[in-house]
Amino acid sequence: MTVYIGNIKFGSGKTTNMKVNQIGEFKLIEILAKTLSDNYKHTNPETVVNEVVSLGDDAAAWNITAGPQVLTTDTLVDNVHFDLNLISAVNIGWKSIVASQSDIAAMGLKPLFATVSLGLTGNEDVNLLKDIYIGMADATSRFGGKVVGGDTVRSNTFFISISMIGHDVFSESHTAPLQRSMAKDGDLIAVTGYLGSSSGGLQILQNKTIDQSKYRNIIESHTRPQPQVDVGSWIARNGIKCATDISDGLIADLEHICKASNVGMKIIIDSIPVSSELKNIFPNDWRLLSMTGGEDYQLVFTGDKELIYKAIKTLTTPITVIGEVNNDYPKISVFNKNGGEINYTYSGFDHFENKKMEIS
Amino acid sequence: MTVYIGNIKFGSGKTTNMKVNQIGEFKLIEILAKTLSDNYKHTNPETVVNEVVSLGDDAAAWNITAGPQVLTTDTLVDNVHFDLNLISAVNIGWKSIVASQSDIAAMGLKPLFATVSLGLTGNEDVNLLKDIYIGMADATSRFGGKVVGGDTVRSNTFFISISMIGHDVFSESHTAPLQRSMAKDGDLIAVTGYLGSSSGGLQILQNKTIDQSKYRNIIESHTRPQPQVDVGSWIARNGIKCATDISDGLIADLEHICKASNVGMKIIIDSIPVSSELKNIFPNDWRLLSMTGGEDYQLVFTGDKELIYKAIKTLTTPITVIGEVNNDYPKISVFNKNGGEINYTYSGFDHFENKKMEIS
Repeated sequence: MTVYIGNIKFGSGKTTNMKVNQIGEFKLIEILAKTLSDNYKHTNPETVVNEVVSLGDDAAAWNITAGPQVLTTDTLVDNVHFDLNLISAVNIGWKSIVASQSDIAAMGLKPLFATVSLGLTGNEDVNLLKDIYIGMADATSRFGGKVVGGDTVRSNTFFISISMIGHDVFSESHTAPLQRSMAKDGDLIAVTGYLGSSSGGLQILQNKTIDQSKYRNIIESHTRPQPQVDVGSWIARNGIKCATDISDGLIADLEHICKASNVGMKIIIDSIPVSSELKNIFPNDWRLLSMTGGEDYQLVFTGDKELIYKAIKTLTTPITVIGEVNNDYPKISVFNKNGGEINYTYSGFDHFENKKMEIS
Repeated sequence: MTVYIGNIKFGSGKTTNMKVNQIGEFKLIEILAKTLSDNYKHTNPETVVNEVVSLGDDAAAWNITAGPQVLTTDTLVDNVHFDLNLISAVNIGWKSIVASQSDIAAMGLKPLFATVSLGLTGNEDVNLLKDIYIGMADATSRFGGKVVGGDTVRSNTFFISISMIGHDVFSESHTAPLQRSMAKDGDLIAVTGYLGSSSGGLQILQNKTIDQSKYRNIIESHTRPQPQVDVGSWIARNGIKCATDISDGLIADLEHICKASNVGMKIIIDSIPVSSELKNIFPNDWRLLSMTGGEDYQLVFTGDKELIYKAIKTLTTPITVIGEVNNDYPKISVFNKNGGEINYTYSGFDHFENKKMEIS
């Protein structure tokens, strides 16, 4: 499969009939390890300073520097988290890594080392798996971190599970990781980038009657999301204490902060940043998408007015104030720009329940 | 499900008809987190010194001390790695953790923090999952480490994926982690414990015509294996450079060392430690089991004669010399005690190929 992003060509561009069953586990691991090393283009300071001393052993080993550290894990299951008919293998690999990088960004740390567990039926084309690893190498090259190990097992369902360590090589210069539990009454609430685009992109991909080529940016918001590693690191070093990433959808992720911090929130719906492209394509649904769409991998953070405005002024990534924290636990009140309260019912995405949002 | 190990009762002992689908993802996570904290009984020095500063966030966070570190991942898939008709849920949880602890032991480090990814169909009984987490809490309480986070996703196949960090709080007092690549010509080869028992235990469990109650020890070798964390840590601090754990089977794991170290080996088949119980139950197959049986989670390590004998003399865990390293890469020659060479063909376990050993 060949995928073009801008002018850069990703993927092997070759298809074969070679299946995992035909080459066996050990040959597969060898091929995938080579794919990673051939396509890993950059070493970020974290992976250089925390030098790897052993690869291909019972576990990868390195010498870690002292400081804050996190471990996060994200699993993508075939036909639940991705559909190979809608998204390329390269982009599945990319997204599997970005999900973990985004969690680490939300803690204010930098991606370091990762392992990949693959559950395979055995009928997967080997080149499809190589493309997934090209996407992983690409995302780690771009936003930091390195895949250093993993596990390959037989499963009736194809899945990819990534575990990634986050660290901070310059840890002595700043304090604790960003936490959901640190929001306080009076904090402003800010978000990076534009919301709802990933969810909009997925809807376009799923609608075969739409000319997909017209909506490339929105589609790429879904297929090639970017974790806000630099923003997370900057705000953690500059006094912000509370953040999370927008992976479940804005309201769902704000709820996580409210519950953890024992606070309420007031949100101005007209302030939520939405791209003009999304508004054009979804004239009726863009508000709903911006409040409930998952997988944007933007950050939401809270802090004193001075800190938030310093971030807006300093960082090149768009940052928008969307509301403020209050003591009305656990309510998230939504208002329009004229001060009118908007009634809504909502429950976030649950893998085992079907819920949705209604604005009345 | 209730499981008795010695006089200790594990598991809730209750069965209900409450399924994952009925309570949803967030309630499930809450129940499983409480199960872990209610059943986690011990804090080892690693988890105390490397203090956790955040739980239930985008990722668990702690302050790490400088030193060698590893990350390992192991995935168990329903009907591939375990059969719920043969093994209790508590013991599946136990084994899922032990697989990672054993990898860390083989690197000479101590289990620290872990994440759990659960792939669930939604039809799982909630108490079955609670029992799995009781087993996880029990294994971490016993051998070190702590589950600090995870991910729960829908999947057509039930699976458990564990990722665990290994560390060494006393790292300044010793050198690099144990590696498969450090065996050298003239080293003695030593193993801990007894081999083949786990595989023998599985065969007994699978044979419904056998009175299982007679073979409790062998069965527990399969259902409640113990990682050799203390041995791994001691040998790493006392000059041994090369080790791996016996998870794929002795010959397969020795092959890993030969390939990584560019050496050959000479093994005396009569030296391989096998329990008298295994010999009694499998009078024809015990040699084969000892050479090929997986999941014993013993350690095999190589080193100078003086170092090996110091380990044998000092440690209470049984340690047995089974052969020596030579330069005959990559051959593993097997001899009987009278010096006669034993011809065999063998390939290790492969998730996607069926291979076996034949002794001629």
